Amino acid sequence: MDCFSYLSALSLSFIIFAHLLSTTVGGESNKAAHFPGSYQASAALKKHGGKPSSSSSYDNPKLPFEVEYFPQTLDHFTFQPRGYKIFYQKYLINREHWHKGAPIFVYTGNEGDIGWFASNTGFLLDIAPKFHALLVFIEHRFYGESMPFGKESYKSAKTLGYLNSQQALADYAILIQSLKQNLSSEASPVVVFGGSYGGMLAAWFRLKYPHVAIGALASSAPILQFDNIIPWSSFYDAVSQDFKVASLNCYEVIKGSWSELDGLSTAEVTKLFKSCKSLKHVESASDWLWTAFVYTAMVNYPTEANFMMPLPPYPVEKMCKIIDGFPEAGASKLSRAFSAASLYYNYSGTEECFDIEVESDPHGLHGWGWQACTEMVMPMVVSDESMFPPSSYNYTETELSCQKSYGVKPRPHWITTQFGGQRIEHVLKRFGSNIIFSNGMQDPWSRGSVLKNISDSIVALVTEKGAHHADFRAATRDDPKWLIQQREEEIQILHKWIGEYYFDINQH
Amino acid sequence: MDCFSYLSALSLSFIIFAHLLSTTVGGESNKAAHFPGSYQASAALKKHGGKPSSSSSYDNPKLPFEVEYFPQTLDHFTFQPRGYKIFYQKYLINREHWHKGAPIFVYTGNEGDIGWFASNTGFLLDIAPKFHALLVFIEHRFYGESMPFGKESYKSAKTLGYLNSQQALADYAILIQSLKQNLSSEASPVVVFGGSYGGMLAAWFRLKYPHVAIGALASSAPILQFDNIIPWSSFYDAVSQDFKVASLNCYEVIKGSWSELDGLSTAEVTKLFKSCKSLKHVESASDWLWTAFVYTAMVNYPTEANFMMPLPPYPVEKMCKIIDGFPEAGASKLSRAFSAASLYYNYSGTEECFDIEVESDPHGLHGWGWQACTEMVMPMVVSDESMFPPSSYNYTETELSCQKSYGVKPRPHWITTQFGGQRIEHVLKRFGSNIIFSNGMQDPWSRGSVLKNISDSIVALVTEKGAHHADFRAATRDDPKWLIQQREEEIQILHKWIGEYYFDINQH
Repeated sequence: MDCFSYLSALSLSFIIFAHLLSTTVGGESNKAAHFPGSYQASAALKKHGGKPSSSSSYDNPKLPFEVEYFPQTLDHFTFQPRGYKIFYQKYLINREHWHKGAPIFVYTGNEGDIGWFASNTGFLLDIAPKFHALLVFIEHRFYGESMPFGKESYKSAKTLGYLNSQQALADYAILIQSLKQNLSSEASPVVVFGGSYGGMLAAWFRLKYPHVAIGALASSAPILQFDNIIPWSSFYDAVSQDFKVASLNCYEVIKGSWSELDGLSTAEVTKLFKSCKSLKHVESASDWLWTAFVYTAMVNYPTEANFMMPLPPYPVEKMCKIIDGFPEAGASKLSRAFSAASLYYNYSGTEECFDIEVESDPHGLHGWGWQACTEMVMPMVVSDESMFPPSSYNYTETELSCQKSYGVKPRPHWITTQFGGQRIEHVLKRFGSNIIFSNGMQDPWSRGSVLKNISDSIVALVTEKGAHHADFRAATRDDPKWLIQQREEEIQILHKWIGEYYFDINQH
Repeated sequence: MDCFSYLSALSLSFIIFAHLLSTTVGGESNKAAHFPGSYQASAALKKHGGKPSSSSSYDNPKLPFEVEYFPQTLDHFTFQPRGYKIFYQKYLINREHWHKGAPIFVYTGNEGDIGWFASNTGFLLDIAPKFHALLVFIEHRFYGESMPFGKESYKSAKTLGYLNSQQALADYAILIQSLKQNLSSEASPVVVFGGSYGGMLAAWFRLKYPHVAIGALASSAPILQFDNIIPWSSFYDAVSQDFKVASLNCYEVIKGSWSELDGLSTAEVTKLFKSCKSLKHVESASDWLWTAFVYTAMVNYPTEANFMMPLPPYPVEKMCKIIDGFPEAGASKLSRAFSAASLYYNYSGTEECFDIEVESDPHGLHGWGWQACTEMVMPMVVSDESMFPPSSYNYTETELSCQKSYGVKPRPHWITTQFGGQRIEHVLKRFGSNIIFSNGMQDPWSRGSVLKNISDSIVALVTEKGAHHADFRAATRDDPKWLIQQREEEIQILHKWIGEYYFDINQH
């Protein structure tokens, strides 16, 4: 198999997944050491039987946005004739509640189709009328339709080289400035919003382009998940914590299931996991479980939702109820873990078997593999306390894999050199303003974000029961009080920023 | 003549000179329209007879610095194997007063040999003992010895493409982080200093890399000289104002001299201007005068100094005394202007004739031509009130010239998109901290800088009688009170920043 395409298929958006891959890479079984580079994973690129809901609104033409395309500069930082090559960057726009001079709310797109993020960020549609806000969702370069080299965009390092966060931020700055000019509304305050990697971009955008955006709401943005800023074990410890809090027995069953799996043949696993086709690798089942538990922790929302997969409210609790209330008293840990994981892939109950080794990428996320092999180097380990099999981190292996796969060497300290992160509470205590870091502690990515107020206007809004950018989801009738309150605090802060802005520009 | 090399020789550091070139470009006489693109000028690249002082300390091995070279990444923003090409970046270091943990003062080099800037920034050597500071002067890529492609560095747009401010700022960040690590002094606070374009870089560095530098002292940094932020006539109006304040007659004589020059033949001008060789163009004499008046306004220091040329204290006044006290009552305005300008080229009185059309570039400044043709597009006009011949600005002509000369199209709004500038007082009122903009109003570049306090810690220190980064010059016995006071205020503010930093990192 072609190594490049294989790894790029394996590589996975970190928003969606953070999995120390225990599967075959480059043809070699890598089970013992795990795949180096926390973000290469096969799991979420495989359908695993459960299909993303076909009624998912992200490709729904009823989403209230017009689609536009902006001629964008390919290379902002090298002044060569080649640098002026342009590509067409997609953005979605909603002018329904806006009038000239009123705020512009921009979502700084992350690593996937912008429509998918728009359909999972109903919060902006909900609040637009309150602010008479224009809404703009900008697609990140090299994702969705915003492909600088068309179908050749992912062909090699030569084309992929332009896929990075600095170029993306400059795209946003240029597009926003141009849009304001075209709307003859230069004085409109811009606020940037983003979730997950998009939230990192929103926070960094406010820091790097304060003259373009007056503030940023960065939801579930793990800007500290680099170098040695936070403990490398924190992500998987957080996933495990979610399950442990739901039920100690549940946590112990999952923790004990992996060794049971190791002892089985592919035939046995094919049967136990109801695989539609005979499995080639036992590790595929391991991935399948891993994916289900990690994602379910991330999207442990208080209401029924469909971000990755359709799931009931508080799905972690539901999984643990399946494990704890298993009908057969003598059932193995593995079969209990399998049943729990099936909730993730088959909430509707309509799947009769699972396509465990079939790859798919419905949200167009696979550019993340390149990003993880260049600047987005987020070291992770699995500790002994975790419910996953322990594993260490080996940068050298990451480097070798990335060189083999993409022909590039990662720059593991570049993000912290470019954007900071070390001692952030000191650096931003007396610098910058108007950033909200919102997080829900159910989400394992919360551990890499900012969880304490840094200054009067760089603040953390943290909920114990929240999950991955839960605040960005459209309001529902079933929303719990703490979520309603988190969103209300956000709205109050947005009003404050915008009010100050109008006050300032009217002073002379 | 090869167009590329011709223009790059003509092109000139804006720090040193801002002259609407009235000479031949690309073989065509461009006198009427002036050269489009305010920063293309031949004048300062010509010796014009007066040689830079050979005792200039910038190439003096007695300067108390060790010379080091850092392996620097060529392209920080494109992740390609090619992007990891390295070059050797020169920096000067003085450890005399430093101990581990104490501050590091970094000069962010501008468009010339770093030694030249170091020798004109005695201020840092003066204050190092007070702060136990390590001093580091980093050379800007593509200047001095820091040539990414050796002698081929200026060969074409392909190599020059990597010469820009964003790449330079990233160089500084990486070099500083690496240096701190090598010194095992990660907790040392870094303050960046820069004058002129170096001052722009220092201010921008604090804004973009607050996690690397706790503050910036930006002396004579015209960060607002872009787009339409300040009136385009302000630079030449300021030069004219200096002369007008010294003597209204002086201003009027100079203002009237240009038309007299226009009526003369090359033979007449050769004689009148004491040219060592027969002049080819009358415009060369115009450049020669223009250079003298503009530079003298810039370096109208209160003490004898040798930045571009050796000059007496307050040289503008001296020039005006020459004009006002001219011995021959009936002498033409042009001959008076010539005598005044001779002070600039021949303060020592030893020159018997002037090499008016001989080009030279003793400080290695000619990379500025490329920068002015890409991102550093600073529109300038000469108003009717100026003492120079009026001229307008035509962006289209600039663009055509740049395409012809370098094969690139300028990006005239890129700097303000990248770094801001519009409504800076609003943007930075509630964002950022710890920047001093110091200026002297004699310096025409002051008009493009920040002249009013923006917040408690983004402040302007302005002196009426100061000139181009006068505060950065070594203290002398003859320094006037206002200059001593300006430097003392700077030192106090530096102490405050550093004190706060140590206080913060010791809090938990």
